[in-house]
Amino acid sequence: MTFSEPTLRTFTQNIFLAIGCSQQHAELAADVLIRSDMRGIDSHGVARLSGYVRLWEKKRINATPDIQIVHETPTTATVDGDSGLGLVVAPFAMKIAMEKAEQYGSGWVSVRNSNHFGISGYHALMAVERDMIGFAMTNASPLVAPTFSNERMLGTNPMCYAFPAGNFPPVVVDMATSAAANGKLEIAQRAGKPVPEGWIQDQDGNFTSDPHALKKGGSLLPLGSDREHGSHKGFGLSATVDILSAVLSGANYGPWVPPFVSFLDPPTDPVGKGIGHFLGAMRVDGFRPVDEFKTHMDNWISRFKSAKTVNGEPSVIIPGEPELEAEKERSKSGIPLVDAVVDDLNELADRFGLEKL
Amino acid sequence: MTFSEPTLRTFTQNIFLAIGCSQQHAELAADVLIRSDMRGIDSHGVARLSGYVRLWEKKRINATPDIQIVHETPTTATVDGDSGLGLVVAPFAMKIAMEKAEQYGSGWVSVRNSNHFGISGYHALMAVERDMIGFAMTNASPLVAPTFSNERMLGTNPMCYAFPAGNFPPVVVDMATSAAANGKLEIAQRAGKPVPEGWIQDQDGNFTSDPHALKKGGSLLPLGSDREHGSHKGFGLSATVDILSAVLSGANYGPWVPPFVSFLDPPTDPVGKGIGHFLGAMRVDGFRPVDEFKTHMDNWISRFKSAKTVNGEPSVIIPGEPELEAEKERSKSGIPLVDAVVDDLNELADRFGLEKL
Repeated sequence: MTFSEPTLRTFTQNIFLAIGCSQQHAELAADVLIRSDMRGIDSHGVARLSGYVRLWEKKRINATPDIQIVHETPTTATVDGDSGLGLVVAPFAMKIAMEKAEQYGSGWVSVRNSNHFGISGYHALMAVERDMIGFAMTNASPLVAPTFSNERMLGTNPMCYAFPAGNFPPVVVDMATSAAANGKLEIAQRAGKPVPEGWIQDQDGNFTSDPHALKKGGSLLPLGSDREHGSHKGFGLSATVDILSAVLSGANYGPWVPPFVSFLDPPTDPVGKGIGHFLGAMRVDGFRPVDEFKTHMDNWISRFKSAKTVNGEPSVIIPGEPELEAEKERSKSGIPLVDAVVDDLNELADRFGLEKL
Repeated sequence: MTFSEPTLRTFTQNIFLAIGCSQQHAELAADVLIRSDMRGIDSHGVARLSGYVRLWEKKRINATPDIQIVHETPTTATVDGDSGLGLVVAPFAMKIAMEKAEQYGSGWVSVRNSNHFGISGYHALMAVERDMIGFAMTNASPLVAPTFSNERMLGTNPMCYAFPAGNFPPVVVDMATSAAANGKLEIAQRAGKPVPEGWIQDQDGNFTSDPHALKKGGSLLPLGSDREHGSHKGFGLSATVDILSAVLSGANYGPWVPPFVSFLDPPTDPVGKGIGHFLGAMRVDGFRPVDEFKTHMDNWISRFKSAKTVNGEPSVIIPGEPELEAEKERSKSGIPLVDAVVDDLNELADRFGLEKL
């Protein structure tokens, strides 16, 4: 079934209002989720709405957080999200980063005591609108094993770098540091299809193509898949995200990160508060005039788009292009949702006495 | 053959003095190369010395550069390296980043008109000594093809993140954004051994295990190896390094990056000056007290070191551990060099009328 953007946006806002969010927070949180669906990242959009609500029911998400700066220099800050929705805590932190960048050239904010923040790209793109380079990372529930290990120690810990361009759309590198994002695994699970070797290992540390291996004690693999192909690099990137987001802010890190799913309890021996994010912004004109930078970005993009291709591929894909294509397509034809997600959303409507989709 | 650190250091300094470097620059450039050998990264140490000299002979390296800040805000700067050795330009830029961080919490420097800067880890670790988090990246000669392409468009573009710890040594994530670093390929070439599939493709874009495929028109693959295993992520990371290092500073980017080898001429249609780097530093106490951070870093490290392992591996390897092990070992037993490198260095000694090794 396909829904128009405004329909899904209003529905989502109303659910956030129903759990007690302010009008402003409900609009912002809905915007982050809807933007994800618009950009074709279905796993991080309204499909997650019931997940946030269930964490609120368990009192693990605070709908009326008092988000505060707890430590600060002219260009750095640590923010405590007061257990709020990451969907509102991360934009709050990104605004601080951008204000600091406006004044001093760059701004960096590490966040603790937060929850799942949606897609990294949303937050990094806030900076791009102001001719800044945006950075956004977050740690997440432990599903990934380090190289040589079969223990789930890290989340899919995404990192995002977003760069403004001139005539071309921005370059947005938005990626899980695991070989495959959890969303891709869920698609294979629903379709009952095997996954490529190198995405996941079973509980004994052997490659498996079973998409359900996670539920049987397996773990996701870092980008690179195995040591020979650089999984220690994927592990290193994931570690970087974990340290910048959580060790630096005072959030939980590694295997202590509280799970996103409400049926699993957080560890009883936390090493910090909630989950952590890291957000940053640098003014382009802190380095060179904006028009010069954008002219060269356009040249960079058009040169890479015209690179020779193999296997009949039409062109090299610039990071951020597929999401933008989805956005164009869905703004015309609406957002498709699978039945399971529609049922899930309608159950939420029932639960709060709201109109169904 | 094995040489003591002081012997190789003095030898290397003397070569840099012979090409006209100041005493200070010769000592610094030698320090970067020797540190690489000490850390076991043989491909980036004195094995490269003759490469730098040949670029100087071609007037592509300026032994007496006037390195300058050409653009600046309180926490950002662009540095022009005046075609100097990257080995001295990068530490110059890192010092600026650290001074800015000292005053404002963070500092970020993009560098143009430079040359190969040695190992990223050297520069990032400068920050760690001052209880800062260090960032170091550089672009490099095009050898890597983007996903879906068989054209060499990017260097192995390394990124390094370095974090101070307490009782444990620093965590240093120092990695090429390609599936395999060029140095590993060179080892396979010398040994005449096949390389794992997924490191390199032939000129038609097919995986090959031929270590000499690069010379036959092939290209290295981004981290992730193929689309299914996330090579678009390796491409995205490499693009990030290229943009931060070169589009931001006004250096050459993508296929315009001048080759490190002197027998290949730089493109005749440059889009900037020389190659580019990006260096950064953030004060840990810009986010939380240093002792708290270090206590949690130690906890992070010890928890990851004690993760369950597979295939009889003794433990998870913390990023930076192998380099530190090499440093300990080589400070006792010296630096081993293969015959080809010793011959190469002795030819340099002959060339400048210096004592051979």
